[in-house]
Amino acid sequence: MSSLLVDNIGELVTNDPSAGGQRPLGVRRDAALLVEEGRVAWLGPARDAPAADRRIDAEGAAVLPGFVDSHAHLVFAGDRAAEFAARMAGQPYTGGGIRTTVGATRAASDDELRATVRRLRGEAMRQGTTTMEIKSGYGLTVADEARSLRIAAEVSEETTFLGAHVVPAEYADRPDDYVGLVCGPMLAAAAPHARWIDVFCERGAFDVDHARAILACGQAVGLGVRVHANQLGPGPGVQLGVELGAASVDHCTHLTDADVDALAGSTTTEWLSGPPTNTVATLLPGAEFSTRSPYPDARRLLDAGVTVALATDCNPGSSYTSSMPFCVALAVREMGMTPAEAVWAATAGGARALRRDDVGVLRPGARADLMILDAPSHLHLAYRPGVPLIREVLHNGVPQCRP
Amino acid sequence: MSSLLVDNIGELVTNDPSAGGQRPLGVRRDAALLVEEGRVAWLGPARDAPAADRRIDAEGAAVLPGFVDSHAHLVFAGDRAAEFAARMAGQPYTGGGIRTTVGATRAASDDELRATVRRLRGEAMRQGTTTMEIKSGYGLTVADEARSLRIAAEVSEETTFLGAHVVPAEYADRPDDYVGLVCGPMLAAAAPHARWIDVFCERGAFDVDHARAILACGQAVGLGVRVHANQLGPGPGVQLGVELGAASVDHCTHLTDADVDALAGSTTTEWLSGPPTNTVATLLPGAEFSTRSPYPDARRLLDAGVTVALATDCNPGSSYTSSMPFCVALAVREMGMTPAEAVWAATAGGARALRRDDVGVLRPGARADLMILDAPSHLHLAYRPGVPLIREVLHNGVPQCRP
Repeated sequence: MSSLLVDNIGELVTNDPSAGGQRPLGVRRDAALLVEEGRVAWLGPARDAPAADRRIDAEGAAVLPGFVDSHAHLVFAGDRAAEFAARMAGQPYTGGGIRTTVGATRAASDDELRATVRRLRGEAMRQGTTTMEIKSGYGLTVADEARSLRIAAEVSEETTFLGAHVVPAEYADRPDDYVGLVCGPMLAAAAPHARWIDVFCERGAFDVDHARAILACGQAVGLGVRVHANQLGPGPGVQLGVELGAASVDHCTHLTDADVDALAGSTTTEWLSGPPTNTVATLLPGAEFSTRSPYPDARRLLDAGVTVALATDCNPGSSYTSSMPFCVALAVREMGMTPAEAVWAATAGGARALRRDDVGVLRPGARADLMILDAPSHLHLAYRPGVPLIREVLHNGVPQCRP
Repeated sequence: MSSLLVDNIGELVTNDPSAGGQRPLGVRRDAALLVEEGRVAWLGPARDAPAADRRIDAEGAAVLPGFVDSHAHLVFAGDRAAEFAARMAGQPYTGGGIRTTVGATRAASDDELRATVRRLRGEAMRQGTTTMEIKSGYGLTVADEARSLRIAAEVSEETTFLGAHVVPAEYADRPDDYVGLVCGPMLAAAAPHARWIDVFCERGAFDVDHARAILACGQAVGLGVRVHANQLGPGPGVQLGVELGAASVDHCTHLTDADVDALAGSTTTEWLSGPPTNTVATLLPGAEFSTRSPYPDARRLLDAGVTVALATDCNPGSSYTSSMPFCVALAVREMGMTPAEAVWAATAGGARALRRDDVGVLRPGARADLMILDAPSHLHLAYRPGVPLIREVLHNGVPQCRP
């Protein structure tokens, strides 16, 4: 396989603390990076760059690890633009609209679902997202959850079974039966296509006992745990996630001191070989933006020592953005993060939330997943909000924008 | 000249109330639009579309008038990313950093300034901005203001002399002398390259007497009036603008009831032939986003009958965004506008703020300045925040993205 040198990098964000430079980003100046066989083979000062078969001139721009978007719902049909417009005219978000999308998703063909997944995955890739978790959760039948995950797995290795997104209308008066379905035949059909299991633990969705039962069933068949928790109000989801050794609890908009303490104290040694890892708090500011809700307090979490990730929550109801740069800008404006903390959370933080150490970082051996900005510094992702600043993306070492 | 048909338009936003459809956008469904000699020659139902030499298939997407960004500062050198990062860590915005950019701008060559203007103008064009006002105001010497406007006029017919941006350091203890310079030799050198005159009327910049004197001098040589007003606190700028028949007062973040009444009651019959036109309130939410300031209350203005425009305020200090879609999304989230009101304000509203009736509207005779979205409806500009949704832009009938 041929080698590729990315040269003339003004600012290289490595997220590798051993690289020296400023923490947490491990920034190198005047750098170059060599790609071989889809991996980072070397990086260092531009003046020491080895020869290569091909070369990309970064023209002094900033180069960063590709974004790791650890929370997205891409398998659905229809959109909810009208519901969005009504909400902006004053109607509150309750999560009830999920069932609208469930109906459209069940009615769609595989090819329609596949086209939407690929369109959104491509859109995100052009915005720098080289790893993207994709959840099921708009099928809510055995067959529709299984096909959702099968289609998701065509474009991502990070797939999550979210049969417990809401209780579908046909089970509205017998939620215990639905939990039985999720833990039984639905999990059996979904698990071959999934790495993770997730539950929406919230008033109006699943209570803590149901959530615990479902997550335990998933763990028993080898799935890692994630939880939608504490989005719409305080609740037991975050502490349940920590109790079960979840890789991530997501949303974290309404937290008590006990929730923050639990996250800060989290360590786990289960299911994944390697060093103990903690439960990440994944914040999804696109959801607060698009539901006009108060933002989570990232500063409080960071100051308590919690690992924070940023993700899009891309979905047609509450956050129809695929833009990680937008989430970075919101996190800085609204959630008390510095630009460096937000960029780290959107790259290395997302990788931690997926228990990955081969993405979200640029060092020899890591995946050659990176982006070249139309800007000299990572600061511009927050400093230039809304502007498409991603000039080129390499995924597994392959240019995605100008191949 | 050849004709070009844009066909298969799912939703055509015309901003033409005589087109029928929903107000204020004058939406047509299943439409087509014919371009000849850079103008709209015809629009109507797709089934009635005339033959044409070339065709663009909109594939059912939404087509809108190009954005009219009526407030941007593109002629500068350097950036202020470090100042931005410091502000996000808690330092307030005072406007004092403008002098940093003045120093860098004076030190730059014409070609350096030209490269920045063209880079940002191109970036905005790819995001749908087909008309973009450009101000001077980082030169603040006779020669530097004149060359700033000369360079701006290379890419825009909407150029604004803003010699009264701040009092430069060398005149700090004799502002009267600086006002004399602005009204005398600086105006004489600037006016041949400018359509408008503007003043930053704010504590720390120019007081109301200086602002009135400068604007009157500009009017006397045929320039139209615009005012930076009421950004950082309450002040006389808005009422001064109305008094002088300004086309627009910009920022309007801190308004009294008297200010709102003055805007709502504004009519003018001066300087521009044609029907009486009022003073537009141009809101710049990118500035509030990037200075972490409270947003202006668009709802209050709209409910009072004031004409509202949205613009980027693109500049390296307080709002380094060139993205009109981002401003639309912010206006809906933060300023009480509906998606339709925000889209109107970013297109037709901007045209009103520049006293133009040939842009910001799609009807026979108007400029063929339009954008094709990667979305079926204008709602998606707010519903899908941060996502680059502009698939193609026509400027004077010429495709800009995939020529």
